[in-house]
Amino acid sequence: MTDRNGEVRMEQQPVTMADVARAAGVSVTTVSYVLSGKRPVAPAKRDAVQAAITKLGFRLNTVAQSLRTGRSSTVALIIPDIANPFYAQLARGLQDALRPDKYHVVVCNTNAERAEELLYLDDAVKRWLDGVVITPSWLVPDDFDALQAAGIPVVVSADTEMDGLDLVRADSQGAIDQAVGHLAREGHRRLGMLVGPAGTPAGDPRLELYRAAAGRHGLDLPASLVVRGKHTREAGVAGLRRLMNRKNPPTAIACVNDLTAIGALEAAEQMGLAVPSDVALIGHDDIEVASLVRPRLSTIRYPAHEVGSACGRLLLERIGGRAGQAEVALRTQLVLRETI
Amino acid sequence: MTDRNGEVRMEQQPVTMADVARAAGVSVTTVSYVLSGKRPVAPAKRDAVQAAITKLGFRLNTVAQSLRTGRSSTVALIIPDIANPFYAQLARGLQDALRPDKYHVVVCNTNAERAEELLYLDDAVKRWLDGVVITPSWLVPDDFDALQAAGIPVVVSADTEMDGLDLVRADSQGAIDQAVGHLAREGHRRLGMLVGPAGTPAGDPRLELYRAAAGRHGLDLPASLVVRGKHTREAGVAGLRRLMNRKNPPTAIACVNDLTAIGALEAAEQMGLAVPSDVALIGHDDIEVASLVRPRLSTIRYPAHEVGSACGRLLLERIGGRAGQAEVALRTQLVLRETI
Repeated sequence: MTDRNGEVRMEQQPVTMADVARAAGVSVTTVSYVLSGKRPVAPAKRDAVQAAITKLGFRLNTVAQSLRTGRSSTVALIIPDIANPFYAQLARGLQDALRPDKYHVVVCNTNAERAEELLYLDDAVKRWLDGVVITPSWLVPDDFDALQAAGIPVVVSADTEMDGLDLVRADSQGAIDQAVGHLAREGHRRLGMLVGPAGTPAGDPRLELYRAAAGRHGLDLPASLVVRGKHTREAGVAGLRRLMNRKNPPTAIACVNDLTAIGALEAAEQMGLAVPSDVALIGHDDIEVASLVRPRLSTIRYPAHEVGSACGRLLLERIGGRAGQAEVALRTQLVLRETI
Repeated sequence: MTDRNGEVRMEQQPVTMADVARAAGVSVTTVSYVLSGKRPVAPAKRDAVQAAITKLGFRLNTVAQSLRTGRSSTVALIIPDIANPFYAQLARGLQDALRPDKYHVVVCNTNAERAEELLYLDDAVKRWLDGVVITPSWLVPDDFDALQAAGIPVVVSADTEMDGLDLVRADSQGAIDQAVGHLAREGHRRLGMLVGPAGTPAGDPRLELYRAAAGRHGLDLPASLVVRGKHTREAGVAGLRRLMNRKNPPTAIACVNDLTAIGALEAAEQMGLAVPSDVALIGHDDIEVASLVRPRLSTIRYPAHEVGSACGRLLLERIGGRAGQAEVALRTQLVLRETI
């Protein structure tokens, strides 16, 4: 490596405690006692260790600390995709909550695939991470056994409980009831829905809430009007096309998240359908872009930054020794803009 | 901790090499030789270590490996804000490039503050990170001395070179010239610009490119029409208001990034100004939302995912032993939509 003055520098491996031990002629354990002060060390040995530290330029570092303490000062955030703005905001909220306690956050993208989810859980055990915050797609409670056995706290951000784990979830029942009530008053009778993939262990809690609300307000939400896909813009584009090409299409469509709703909005525009007069649309989350599209997206606000910071607070409590399982339900809020 | 069967589990610290050494009555160094096979160990001692490993349930882990190898299999991404969609996409690109080599990526938000930037660089040294990818706001080359001395590779994602460090940058000269040429043909003569904060070490490379292009195409870009702010929507709102309230306002405004341009678009709407007929706007980057706002934002495409993966490739090359300084200039592209 050549630095900017043209001098050649040697690339060096960091000096380890083992190097110090070798140079001082003592064991690594003795070096660690000198560094931590946890046990007395004979003066001659202590002096030898300190001389070796000075000579080699050893710096006590977090890795060596980890080996002594079993702690890495690092937390994993395991999510489908950091490029999804909901998760980017959630990540920021988590990081802001953990920042005062100096935890690093590693961001792990699973693409909502089970194999990736398992791999990152395994990694968390191997790397002695201090905690995991996860939005699982395909995991079941047994998948967390190794983390539980290793004493690694887990906080789940999802709509449904994962047995034994701390949970941050949306409490959307009230907001969804208001949204469906609003649609009923606007004369809608036939509701469609764009939801996530079939067969996930968590099921479709948002679909269930819409179904119950539709029942209360006299709207139909038949199985033929429920279309499945990933939680993406592309899924929203495809989903709206499928629903609006049905013989008897819906007059309003509820979407599992805003990205899906924004895709649906694009597809409606491409098909020459006016929103909300030809088809009403409602999202979920209120990501930043919801208020930037035209017409502005009506949605159910579930503030991602707060979700992330709530996850962070639960994790810190658990790291701090809280024993019982905790759940935070964040009440969501109907935001009426221009699409319903 | 109570698991889902109601059984009480003990929260345990992970078993360390020191625990194994104690139980086997040998030094930690001996344990590490048994594990790594790097040096021969007397059979009696080896058997004692292996018995202790079985008895204690010790698992060789990445932390212990780090102490032996001086490597953490972790890379830091140090950026102003992961909630900015450009950086979320860049993060995803970086992670995708590093994924096959199993590196974890810790995401560090600096809010474009020097103190935070320095803190995360220091952290990278203390934690023996394998590399750093950074978009610096206030750092100067000397700030990287400790990383260079520790042999930690650094890749900078920015418009201007940081002496001695690998660089991924936008090559926007051609696209900016085209944009200004387009504005000239549309009859614009007075160009304003919304740029970043004053006094950053990198200066204002995008402003310089617009200034040169304005000169070539016969447009004015006077200092009085350059407004500074953070690279945010809020700065765009405030910046457009200031420019359009000038006695002699510009007829077109170039923005340092899309977020600023989107804020400017909102402010124009609030002021009752039509875009582009009252004021033309152009962004930089082409984040997803650029094509979702109305009117659709014209911009200069600098694809964040590719930027991130280029950073990842440079980092892997450097970790793999490449000595010379490398630079990747990604040619940007004018995207004409509806705002110029």
